[in-house]
Amino acid sequence: MLLSLLDLDYETVPINMADMAHKAPEFVALNPLGQVPVLDDDGDIIRDSQAILVYLAAKYGAGGWLPADDPSALGHVSEWLSFSANEMLHGCAVSRALVLFNREGDLEGARSLARRALSVLDSHLAGRDWLVGGSPTVADIANYVYAALVHQGGINPHEFAHVSAWLGRVEALDGYIAMAALPAPN
Amino acid sequence: MLLSLLDLDYETVPINMADMAHKAPEFVALNPLGQVPVLDDDGDIIRDSQAILVYLAAKYGAGGWLPADDPSALGHVSEWLSFSANEMLHGCAVSRALVLFNREGDLEGARSLARRALSVLDSHLAGRDWLVGGSPTVADIANYVYAALVHQGGINPHEFAHVSAWLGRVEALDGYIAMAALPAPN
Repeated sequence: MLLSLLDLDYETVPINMADMAHKAPEFVALNPLGQVPVLDDDGDIIRDSQAILVYLAAKYGAGGWLPADDPSALGHVSEWLSFSANEMLHGCAVSRALVLFNREGDLEGARSLARRALSVLDSHLAGRDWLVGGSPTVADIANYVYAALVHQGGINPHEFAHVSAWLGRVEALDGYIAMAALPAPN
Repeated sequence: MLLSLLDLDYETVPINMADMAHKAPEFVALNPLGQVPVLDDDGDIIRDSQAILVYLAAKYGAGGWLPADDPSALGHVSEWLSFSANEMLHGCAVSRALVLFNREGDLEGARSLARRALSVLDSHLAGRDWLVGGSPTVADIANYVYAALVHQGGINPHEFAHVSAWLGRVEALDGYIAMAALPAPN
């Protein structure tokens, strides 16, 4: 999504995780953790979705997506990157995975974490257009991808009015690409 | 630890988590997640240990602890911040907590995650003094704090020779403060 928002050319390479392609030697050579996603930018290899956002914003964002020269704003962006990787992942992404893939797990527990996380986001977004400062940053993108799909985990995003309005603001950005239009996992 | 390495004055305020002080209204006003640590820098409130490292390095590190103007190095620092918050936390910190606090949980599973994480660190540190570039960054500090205490989870750090040597390099830094000398949790 950030590649598209930054209007960069890119090629996606699907990794067949059902066939354990993410644990194959040629993939582990790119990422010793054996995890997707991995970015290969002319031989500079970056793993981890948060790190990829930080890298792309710092390299191509022209100061607009990562406030690297404002320590306070950068600290707050980091807070929300952690929030995405912890609270949003364990709540929103897990409840979605349990429903979509029909996995065994504590669905009500995950939904309760998701609602708590969405409610923290919602309070923060009351009276704010973006998570940090007056324009979108990687903090918005990192949290958007989980918040936009909570309905697939059985949560109604419209319970959270400020979150809903903010989802709409992200979707109105130039270069926004709907996640349904992203290459499907194989 | 980074406050000390940066030679900054600070005051620590213990939070009595046994009394649920981290969920009390006056603490939740600082951090709606109800989690420690929180930094109050003259009224600028930063939560989350990774974000606090990023903030302090950007504000006080004089370019030495966070390579904010080098997108590739910044991306790699972010990778290792995520690694600390995921692989190191779930392996090293969890096995330590299970042993120290005599908690119920999958100790062998946590130790196995810890050994896998330490072995990724170890391979990366072969032929390198620091995780990213030629001098210490917040990536080293974020991972050090978990790696330095793995013996408390029943793992011998000397199984990982490059990690052991790197722990020594961190401990030789000017302003290094041993974690045993940090204020004890109350």
